[in-house]
Amino acid sequence: MLKKKNTNPRTEKKSTKQKREQQQEKTTPSFSFKIIHEETHCQARTGIITTPHGLIHTPAFIPVGTQATVKSLTPQQLNEINFDAILCNTYHLYLRPGPDTIQKLGKLQKFTAWHKPIFTDSGGFQVFSLNDGLCKIDNDGVTFTSHIDQSKHRITPETSMQIQKKLGADLIFAFDQCLDINADKPTTSLSLERTHAWATRSLKEFQKLNKDKSQALYGIVQGGRFPELREQSAKFIASLHFDAIGIGSIFGDPKEESKQLVRSALKHLPKEKTKHLLGIGAVEDLFTYVELGLDTFDCVLPTRLARVGYIFLRPESGGAIQNKYRYRITNEKFKQDPSPLDKYCTCYVCTNFSKAYIRHLFKANELLFYTLTTYHNLSFFQRLMQEIRTAIEKDKFLQLKKKWVI
Amino acid sequence: MLKKKNTNPRTEKKSTKQKREQQQEKTTPSFSFKIIHEETHCQARTGIITTPHGLIHTPAFIPVGTQATVKSLTPQQLNEINFDAILCNTYHLYLRPGPDTIQKLGKLQKFTAWHKPIFTDSGGFQVFSLNDGLCKIDNDGVTFTSHIDQSKHRITPETSMQIQKKLGADLIFAFDQCLDINADKPTTSLSLERTHAWATRSLKEFQKLNKDKSQALYGIVQGGRFPELREQSAKFIASLHFDAIGIGSIFGDPKEESKQLVRSALKHLPKEKTKHLLGIGAVEDLFTYVELGLDTFDCVLPTRLARVGYIFLRPESGGAIQNKYRYRITNEKFKQDPSPLDKYCTCYVCTNFSKAYIRHLFKANELLFYTLTTYHNLSFFQRLMQEIRTAIEKDKFLQLKKKWVI
Repeated sequence: MLKKKNTNPRTEKKSTKQKREQQQEKTTPSFSFKIIHEETHCQARTGIITTPHGLIHTPAFIPVGTQATVKSLTPQQLNEINFDAILCNTYHLYLRPGPDTIQKLGKLQKFTAWHKPIFTDSGGFQVFSLNDGLCKIDNDGVTFTSHIDQSKHRITPETSMQIQKKLGADLIFAFDQCLDINADKPTTSLSLERTHAWATRSLKEFQKLNKDKSQALYGIVQGGRFPELREQSAKFIASLHFDAIGIGSIFGDPKEESKQLVRSALKHLPKEKTKHLLGIGAVEDLFTYVELGLDTFDCVLPTRLARVGYIFLRPESGGAIQNKYRYRITNEKFKQDPSPLDKYCTCYVCTNFSKAYIRHLFKANELLFYTLTTYHNLSFFQRLMQEIRTAIEKDKFLQLKKKWVI
Repeated sequence: MLKKKNTNPRTEKKSTKQKREQQQEKTTPSFSFKIIHEETHCQARTGIITTPHGLIHTPAFIPVGTQATVKSLTPQQLNEINFDAILCNTYHLYLRPGPDTIQKLGKLQKFTAWHKPIFTDSGGFQVFSLNDGLCKIDNDGVTFTSHIDQSKHRITPETSMQIQKKLGADLIFAFDQCLDINADKPTTSLSLERTHAWATRSLKEFQKLNKDKSQALYGIVQGGRFPELREQSAKFIASLHFDAIGIGSIFGDPKEESKQLVRSALKHLPKEKTKHLLGIGAVEDLFTYVELGLDTFDCVLPTRLARVGYIFLRPESGGAIQNKYRYRITNEKFKQDPSPLDKYCTCYVCTNFSKAYIRHLFKANELLFYTLTTYHNLSFFQRLMQEIRTAIEKDKFLQLKKKWVI
């Protein structure tokens, strides 16, 4: 695995920072994915995604920064935790502050001061999930009402690409229809046809916009709860010239069914392309899907749960599938507990603060509570993925899985 | 001025951190104040306060961490900004999580993971200001109702010392009565008598509790709006064996009157003792009172204003007494402004983020907004005090004042 340079924007001198940015500009590598090591006992693999803003070591967990910020953390803190990339939501940024504003301000990396790789999703998921009954879909695109000010908007595959171009993330997604996962087969099949037509249109528009090779496009496999539709979708998406592939509308539960659906898709997806599983982040799910060969994952789970007091716990400290690897720090019993959130965690929070202090911050409605719990939870996921990568490279992934998922 | 060592708990190895803590334990210096340089053109001076947890370079601004946290910042960030000390509020910590809890958890430094000097106030100010009409004063002490759960409590000079001992700050304050500043002379005079009796009792209790010399006690000069009472109070407080002296109930306005009251007190206070002006933090007031010889100041102004969007601005960028050295970042006109909060500021926030990004965080209700605005405002005050210290040592304080306060 390549050694990563310290690119903490805080500790660098300004001139060094400028030089680095200039150099990155000059030597901008286009997108690539290289498999570094394939596990001998399963489909898991390590790899490196190269983007204009640096490398992503896979398998990787990608924290979500919905509104161009991973809630409560500075980019400096995210960098300390050692993340390679974050994912921002196109839907939210399209509505506020708007793609033109972000483009004018130097695109997402400059806007957020996160100078490493960024993903944006297509906007599709939020258009459908945040506009229940308020969006109208036709074959050309979607018309919806803003959840902020009730203004009317329309997104099509073409405008999704245009918006994502202006936002300027390194890794972007084709516009797809995220259907109710419980839809019946005829409905899902019809929706899949539309998603495939939109995939073709997204790719065509992307190719027009991406002459400078500054972005890479993920096609998205859909197909609801039907393995044969998942297969059909995978075959179609694999037949197009996407740089990479995402699998959408997999919720992790029910476990066996979700796994079966992903397997059906993977059967027809080329090994050499990197694959992202959208919205997945439960610990046991990460093991399941890394084992099947998925490379990257994004999920709001660690950050959202942090803000309501759920703390992730390593197996050495009692984290297990039964307790979902977490506990609530808000409990009265921690009032005088001098121990760290997780005594086997080595993050900034666990080496400096007690459970009692963090519970105090919660009781006192202090902002630092959100920062510390988020910092710890993300550190937990970052270290988990680091351990997964190391285990794969030693062909010991299944042993690591056994330690975590009993 | 002494060079400060990097004591960032994050970047140190654990063993180094432990060694440092052990060494501090062994060589614990008792409290001292040394004047380093006296300005030739006024009463301003630089100095060093030595405490068991390190040095405070004066004149210094002390950020307020009411509930054992400077709102929205980690101790690591406060350390980056380069503060020497913070001030916590005894009243709040007494009610939640309670002095016994904090003592059990290793006192304030360990509880907060801020390993540098800490002040606590006596609790008096909040007892009176947060319990309007709900506290009963007698000569022995104050009975009041908790603003959190309406439970009944009683604080006396003795219990204030006992609470502050358990909290374990380096620098603590005598228990005083903070009277309505507009009280008439007979009322103020009676209250002052009580404050003086409480000062004597605070000191006596402190001497009993402080055999290990781990804390230093500030006596507090009161006297309301009456110069002659201020003089009387200063004489009395100066006659007792306090380590240092605070001046209370000075609000900065009206300017001339406030200044006159502080002058009346200073006339009778020994030069060699360090002096703290409680609750003062307006830029022009810092200049006024540093000029008169005050050494330290605490105020919630920079942090509280940050959270509602007021950004402090240096004179090079247009900050002036007329605009109170600040502007509101929430204004629509900054929507696409790529410039930093203050282009002459060199803090982490100003070298990385645009006005447009920070305004976006505000509009999107993002937690990072509080962190970034607080970080900048505190950096502004830290740098201002650094410039004041440098100017004093070059006998150019009045020139610096002219640059800032026109």
